[in-house]
Amino acid sequence: MKAVLLRTVPPDRLIDLTHELTAHAVPEAAFVLWSMAREFPSGTVHLAVVDPGVGGARAPVAVECRDGSYLVGPDNGVLFPLAEALGIRRAVRLDPARIERPGRVGTTFDGRDLFAPAAARLARGEPISRLGPAHRLRPLRWPEPRALRGEGAEGAILHIDRFGNVITNVPVGWLPKGGTRVSVRVGRGRERSLSRATSYEALGTGRLGVLGSSFGLVELAVARGRAADRLRVRVGARVRLGWRPRGMMVNSEGPRRR
Amino acid sequence: MKAVLLRTVPPDRLIDLTHELTAHAVPEAAFVLWSMAREFPSGTVHLAVVDPGVGGARAPVAVECRDGSYLVGPDNGVLFPLAEALGIRRAVRLDPARIERPGRVGTTFDGRDLFAPAAARLARGEPISRLGPAHRLRPLRWPEPRALRGEGAEGAILHIDRFGNVITNVPVGWLPKGGTRVSVRVGRGRERSLSRATSYEALGTGRLGVLGSSFGLVELAVARGRAADRLRVRVGARVRLGWRPRGMMVNSEGPRRR
Amino acid sequence: MKAVLLRTVPPDRLIDLTHELTAHAVPEAAFVLWSMAREFPSGTVHLAVVDPGVGGARAPVAVECRDGSYLVGPDNGVLFPLAEALGIRRAVRLDPARIERPGRVGTTFDGRDLFAPAAARLARGEPISRLGPAHRLRPLRWPEPRALRGEGAEGAILHIDRFGNVITNVPVGWLPKGGTRVSVRVGRGRERSLSRATSYEALGTGRLGVLGSSFGLVELAVARGRAADRLRVRVGARVRLGWRPRGMMVNSEGPRRR
Repeated sequence: MKAVLLRTVPPDRLIDLTHELTAHAVPEAAFVLWSMAREFPSGTVHLAVVDPGVGGARAPVAVECRDGSYLVGPDNGVLFPLAEALGIRRAVRLDPARIERPGRVGTTFDGRDLFAPAAARLARGEPISRLGPAHRLRPLRWPEPRALRGEGAEGAILHIDRFGNVITNVPVGWLPKGGTRVSVRVGRGRERSLSRATSYEALGTGRLGVLGSSFGLVELAVARGRAADRLRVRVGARVRLGWRPRGMMVNSEGPRRR
Repeated sequence: MKAVLLRTVPPDRLIDLTHELTAHAVPEAAFVLWSMAREFPSGTVHLAVVDPGVGGARAPVAVECRDGSYLVGPDNGVLFPLAEALGIRRAVRLDPARIERPGRVGTTFDGRDLFAPAAARLARGEPISRLGPAHRLRPLRWPEPRALRGEGAEGAILHIDRFGNVITNVPVGWLPKGGTRVSVRVGRGRERSLSRATSYEALGTGRLGVLGSSFGLVELAVARGRAADRLRVRVGARVRLGWRPRGMMVNSEGPRRR
Repeated sequence: MKAVLLRTVPPDRLIDLTHELTAHAVPEAAFVLWSMAREFPSGTVHLAVVDPGVGGARAPVAVECRDGSYLVGPDNGVLFPLAEALGIRRAVRLDPARIERPGRVGTTFDGRDLFAPAAARLARGEPISRLGPAHRLRPLRWPEPRALRGEGAEGAILHIDRFGNVITNVPVGWLPKGGTRVSVRVGRGRERSLSRATSYEALGTGRLGVLGSSFGLVELAVARGRAADRLRVRVGARVRLGWRPRGMMVNSEGPRRR
């Protein structure tokens, strides 16, 4: 893909963002793309390929956004949250006949054969309308968090980062101000009463707790450890949070050491 | 290595291609280099270090190719397929006395101490003859696929990609047109009758099948899964493919669900 | 972090050095930064984030070095060896009020919110004094190797590289000239008598031995294998080396094959 881009795009325009995504996990990739890409300047061409359906029914697409940025990739939802955040001006279904070079080998690498050439042409200033006919982007069934009568929230695990921190889709702003404990149940696991903290250090090494992640979402973390391993949780698992009054729950993690 | 290159090569000339190769697996690296590097423009200086024999008997070399590209690395076969594909104009054995800077530390990192400085000098336009005496490149004992009386082929596993897809060295063009099933035996494993497909999606999630890889070679894949784990196969294993008439084999993967 | 840097720093000024460090292992990261970064030209701004204490008591800092280079990161020791090697001209404690942009989300990603903006401003030529008040850098409790009456040395494991090679903090120059065997005891493991070699090849495939690493330190390695797995060792473990006369120890690795 890089080689294809470099045929026409100067190397100093190329930023390699990440290869550390879970294979085939489209909602997680959509979340990471949304959270990272919106930091980039307007006019950026974002190329994202998490594409288990490559060569199948999902459309290959390019999107022009309201801020002048472009998105290129499969229409399987991976582009959708970022496209919505930036505002969709128009989208096209990439037409292989207009984009692929002759002698394409195989049908399983649209990244190299379709998305990279399309992104390179957009980066050179070519209008998106030349890449294919108009297309309506498929929305991502993004898991929506749900507030529970002021006592908690239900949501899902959106992302597990390379440290094993577990990022939910529950906005950290939903947590009550001043509370010190949160009950957490992940999947079919048991309910745990966890400390809230603003740093891993404040949790105490090896202890599981609740933080506000750098994405603005509730995060479950083990200080200097891997919360995902401790909780045996995967992306997509359901999570239930509660902020009932203190003292009403067994503190399953034991007293907090300082 | 990057720091050494950056002393004289501008950062925008430097592309970091991959660090995801199997340690010590020279034929796999030779294959990946060959398949990726030929996409780069002529005149590129390709630096490749998969070098279990560093500091030993294998020669450190640089190769000038017919298209004006250069290759730098150990003469253990890793450069050979790409060199042959681009055409060898001349090769030299790198002379440490002409290349290393004073104060070299250790004998186990020719990438930093020998290959990177040599590549930097080639990138600056220095003639290859200044880097050492003429040298004859050692061929790679690349596993050659063999056709079996029109009924199949024998070959080897060249590469396992990060998704666990298993790439053989059998050209996909050897498969008969229109066939829908292929018998596959890997190493001493049992023979399996697998579906052919043109996309992972068409295989069906979790099912093992045969595709034409993006390298133009026969690929064994599990849709949204890891074929290498399912088959318990490693790079270098022998593979036997058969395309006998349908119905003559037990379909070991069960009926195909749609 | 890259996106934040790219708002003001051109992409061709940005080098991504490594993401292959052990999570939370500050001394190892300090060692790798020290060993790699000193190869970069003076004037470089080095940004290093291995930061288990993010948001806690450790100070966020920037350091101006005598050669005109800058270091940015947490004051947990990760910057210290490189700072000492380059010479500390002045250090400041980064002041979030002067650096963070409005609307910061979360308290667990100083890399994005504090270190990257600070590094970008230093890269643009802004004086370090504008980023915060003067600060005294905390020294790293770097494990010091100790010579044992000319018969050996005690030290610790500083780094395990991606090949599983085990790098100690004992300078290779401490090994006696001409010796062919070294006794090695790691942690509470048994004592082994290992061959010395100048290349992995000379050790012989699959055999454990002692080399001078490319860092100028004693390295334990298995040719084409993973010494860290063979020795079941982690970064920080104690290591004891001995160079008593040949023949006085049982050769626990058996006779050396050539």
